[in-house]
Amino acid sequence: MASVEENFFEGTEKLLEVWFGFKTDATNGDLRIIPRCEWEELLKLAKCEIISYCKNEDMDAYVLSESSMFVTKDKFILKTCGTTTLLQTIKPLIQLVDSQCGIREILDIFYSRKNFSRPELQIGVHQNFVDEVGHLDKQFRDGAAYTLGRMNKDCWYLYTLDKHGVTQPDQTFELLMWDMCDNRMKIFTKEFSESGADATKKSGICNIIPGAKIDDVLFEPCGYSMNGLLPDGYYFTIHVTPESHCSYVSFESNVPRESYDELIKKVLNIFCPRKFLMTVFANRVRYFNFRISKFRVYRISLIQDHQFCNFKNYNLTYTLFSRPIL
Amino acid sequence: MASVEENFFEGTEKLLEVWFGFKTDATNGDLRIIPRCEWEELLKLAKCEIISYCKNEDMDAYVLSESSMFVTKDKFILKTCGTTTLLQTIKPLIQLVDSQCGIREILDIFYSRKNFSRPELQIGVHQNFVDEVGHLDKQFRDGAAYTLGRMNKDCWYLYTLDKHGVTQPDQTFELLMWDMCDNRMKIFTKEFSESGADATKKSGICNIIPGAKIDDVLFEPCGYSMNGLLPDGYYFTIHVTPESHCSYVSFESNVPRESYDELIKKVLNIFCPRKFLMTVFANRVRYFNFRISKFRVYRISLIQDHQFCNFKNYNLTYTLFSRPIL
Repeated sequence: MASVEENFFEGTEKLLEVWFGFKTDATNGDLRIIPRCEWEELLKLAKCEIISYCKNEDMDAYVLSESSMFVTKDKFILKTCGTTTLLQTIKPLIQLVDSQCGIREILDIFYSRKNFSRPELQIGVHQNFVDEVGHLDKQFRDGAAYTLGRMNKDCWYLYTLDKHGVTQPDQTFELLMWDMCDNRMKIFTKEFSESGADATKKSGICNIIPGAKIDDVLFEPCGYSMNGLLPDGYYFTIHVTPESHCSYVSFESNVPRESYDELIKKVLNIFCPRKFLMTVFANRVRYFNFRISKFRVYRISLIQDHQFCNFKNYNLTYTLFSRPIL
Repeated sequence: MASVEENFFEGTEKLLEVWFGFKTDATNGDLRIIPRCEWEELLKLAKCEIISYCKNEDMDAYVLSESSMFVTKDKFILKTCGTTTLLQTIKPLIQLVDSQCGIREILDIFYSRKNFSRPELQIGVHQNFVDEVGHLDKQFRDGAAYTLGRMNKDCWYLYTLDKHGVTQPDQTFELLMWDMCDNRMKIFTKEFSESGADATKKSGICNIIPGAKIDDVLFEPCGYSMNGLLPDGYYFTIHVTPESHCSYVSFESNVPRESYDELIKKVLNIFCPRKFLMTVFANRVRYFNFRISKFRVYRISLIQDHQFCNFKNYNLTYTLFSRPIL
């Protein structure tokens, strides 16, 4: 048991997305003017660091020692796994954007995560969503905290602001997968693959969304992270914890789709999870009605929970699937 | 402040519904054979007692010192407010039904409640839904716990079993109302009304569902409870906490409706709550798609949260409304 304890890694990420309210005529109204050394200081508070970087016209993307960070003109996304302390960055982030860009208006925030496998190993407020909410409530008025799914089994937590903040079309699609096929997980080890690019190719991740600018990292001795940049501010990001006793993969993207069926099929075929949950978040500007009847491509999976929420500005669908052992 | 503390009453009820799996040929297969003295012993564990009783062919209905109890052939409903300890009855209830009726099969259970106004005044596990879930998980395998709405503001908790248990058509409709119009609340005081029957008439409760057999109680100096029995096992029940600093009213019924609009209109017109939440629970046998677009009758109300859940055997709609101050 001791060796399992020692090798345990919490792949489940904490995910923060903050939208800032820039005035269009502000000369310094762009988060990307903030120097890298400032981001590095901020990330120290979360106990992680930058290990790779790529960019295109609309977005800066960083692979971190624990997951990823994305920065656009007016949006900041930080995703960190392990025992990172993401919420320690919230107040300093707001102060940083204020001091560097002169912007204090927060249009909306989204803090979300799946329940941890081992919450007792987390640090400070992250041991418990109630404590995370308490921390966020100190910072924000009108914060609304939700639990989707079963709070005594698998669930997904969300904290967001109860306001009509973001007016541009926005959607986030996530597939969080665990209890993965061991054979597929081997690809994400140094024993099997030479590099991030090698794992991206061997796994088929390169074919999920063709045409992306990919920044991929394979960790020693195992583990994998990639950021994919697409035109117009679209991205996708994948993180793999391959160890068989704590296997976990996350897929996240903001690419708009009428139906996510094909995307889901591609991702599931690569990782073969025994359990996975899907969240689809979309604001009313790009409203889509995500219906359970469309889930034809993985008919073999059992739906354990399905919930739909109307928020003031967004609609959210949460679905938890489990697949029979074949 | 001290006087407010002293007079505070937690109107918000704990609600338990248990369906038992009786074999049709069992001679003692009816919960109503259990003698009253046994129910009285059971209710002592919850810290409440029977104060009135009525029945019809399909259902026994009890008004309690704190809310209500209903017993049919195969279903037990216990609703208790204040600082009652409802969950202390779960294990003894199951033992009682086993010893008196020889039945151990539980088809499904539903334990639900709104968040309390003053959780710190509750006793034992009832201070916290997480503790209530822990208590229930000791008793049941495959229990699933959910939080609908905002866990840091107003929300509604549910614990149910993840199984295809109940096969007959079933639906429960609840309106939980608070921050009530003082003028309407006066009716439910001894100063204004002579008796339960008088309050039922003056308030208009008698007209909500015509034709019901009504058992109504007006408490000293204020407070009101009623059970209404209808043919074929249908019922409705209303409980009023009229004190202006902690006003609360609950309406619950299992009457089937294509649309609940008319019922909602009648109930809201009687109580004029500033805030209310609605839950509609229905199994697939009597599936209905409760759409938000149908809520025309209280268009003036603002929807704060709207959630829809597919469970294995039931669909649930949760909606929280707040009305502007007129």
